[in-house]
Amino acid sequence: SGLVLVKNPHLDLMEEDILYHLDLGTKTHNLPAMFGDIKFVCVGGSPNRMRAFAQFLRRELGLAGAGEDVADICAGSDRYAMYRAGPVLSISHGMGIPSISIMLHELIKLLHHAKCRDVTIIRIGTSGGLGIEAGSVVITDTAVDSSFQPRFEQVVLGDVVVRSTELDKDLAEELLACSREIPGFPTLIGHTMCTYDFYEGQGRLDGALCSFSSEKKLEYLRRAYDAGVRNIEMESTAFAALCGLCGLKGESRRFHLL
Amino acid sequence: SGLVLVKNPHLDLMEEDILYHLDLGTKTHNLPAMFGDIKFVCVGGSPNRMRAFAQFLRRELGLAGAGEDVADICAGSDRYAMYRAGPVLSISHGMGIPSISIMLHELIKLLHHAKCRDVTIIRIGTSGGLGIEAGSVVITDTAVDSSFQPRFEQVVLGDVVVRSTELDKDLAEELLACSREIPGFPTLIGHTMCTYDFYEGQGRLDGALCSFSSEKKLEYLRRAYDAGVRNIEMESTAFAALCGLCGLKGESRRFHLL
Repeated sequence: SGLVLVKNPHLDLMEEDILYHLDLGTKTHNLPAMFGDIKFVCVGGSPNRMRAFAQFLRRELGLAGAGEDVADICAGSDRYAMYRAGPVLSISHGMGIPSISIMLHELIKLLHHAKCRDVTIIRIGTSGGLGIEAGSVVITDTAVDSSFQPRFEQVVLGDVVVRSTELDKDLAEELLACSREIPGFPTLIGHTMCTYDFYEGQGRLDGALCSFSSEKKLEYLRRAYDAGVRNIEMESTAFAALCGLCGLKGESRRFHLL
Repeated sequence: SGLVLVKNPHLDLMEEDILYHLDLGTKTHNLPAMFGDIKFVCVGGSPNRMRAFAQFLRRELGLAGAGEDVADICAGSDRYAMYRAGPVLSISHGMGIPSISIMLHELIKLLHHAKCRDVTIIRIGTSGGLGIEAGSVVITDTAVDSSFQPRFEQVVLGDVVVRSTELDKDLAEELLACSREIPGFPTLIGHTMCTYDFYEGQGRLDGALCSFSSEKKLEYLRRAYDAGVRNIEMESTAFAALCGLCGLKGESRRFHLL
């Protein structure tokens, strides 16, 4: 049916669903009227960038009010920012897996309550490239963990649950085809490695702690490259796992990382 | 000597240290002049709350400009917000371990470059209470993971490194003594459990995914309570481990969670 699915039998029993960190709720807001026509969701770390992205989209789509400021739909919360450009939502998620997970749980419930259909979700943002030209765009085919495995380990009531982090291959190819129409920056498809830490987790030599040599760092990054990793960031495995489980995966409801 | 320590031999070889996510650096800013007299750092998730906290402190300390707005020292970045009230810095860290880790790496380097001495760092914020009265303040003696163990697992170049999450017991007692002077809210010392996820990780029944029954959730939370856990949040183990390793632990340089 193209509907977004929540896999939580408890939700139907709740009189009200409060999306705490988005400052929205099923009793305080008419979610189908506000969001029912959404077809694309673009998410990224920085609130300023996601506002600029919404403004860019409004100009590109020739929407009314394209030159004006866009309102933050989540203005009542300083956890995330959400902007709208026609059928596209542009939402910030902060940095790291726990931060994007909270936003995605509430976004998925939002799309569910709003009865949205055929939604594509794309994460955009900066990342550290691995053996590629500076300024390249990496379209992720699979998100991998720090052992280069396509899995996301989620702790549920103290037990580790392992989830798949496959992303939609058709959408990856479609995005790559789009990139050919825009000259000036190299674009490729590859694996994206997701870490829990920016400094030690990514082998950076400029953190407050660093117990390894630059040789050991290079050896690790070479192994990552050989495993197909082309860039490193901090959200992709949770993004892939959570979207995949909630019915955002499929031919007509594709999502991917850009 | 009371100085903050960085355990990274590579830092001394760097011509410039850029604290990317704070929009500060050793060449662009005179860090000793700006921060050399800092004695306390209070950190919390929400930027609005940390601004309000700095304003509250300015009034409490009778500082000049107490009624005026406080400037965000990190205004050039939308990753974190930093405010100053006399010898106290008030900094936001976003949500979750990866987000607070980036801020702490850069804060610890900031305090190091500024040659700060005898700094106490306190995390303040909301948390979910466990078997305690609503509105209680929990002062953490030990941060524990989702298996109730006092440890923080950090992945370094793909290998898991286990770190201690002990906090300063004297400071905990000192904070508890302070609370006795302020009537009206119950205060206690206990363990704080740190999770990677707000919904599934904390056994919440209102996420987009929920594969467990309310009975199984209660059984888990009862085991947590029996292990000494009195509240749940998402940053304490990384906070305790990172501060402890960087010389912020000790009699005169104590830190703790409030």
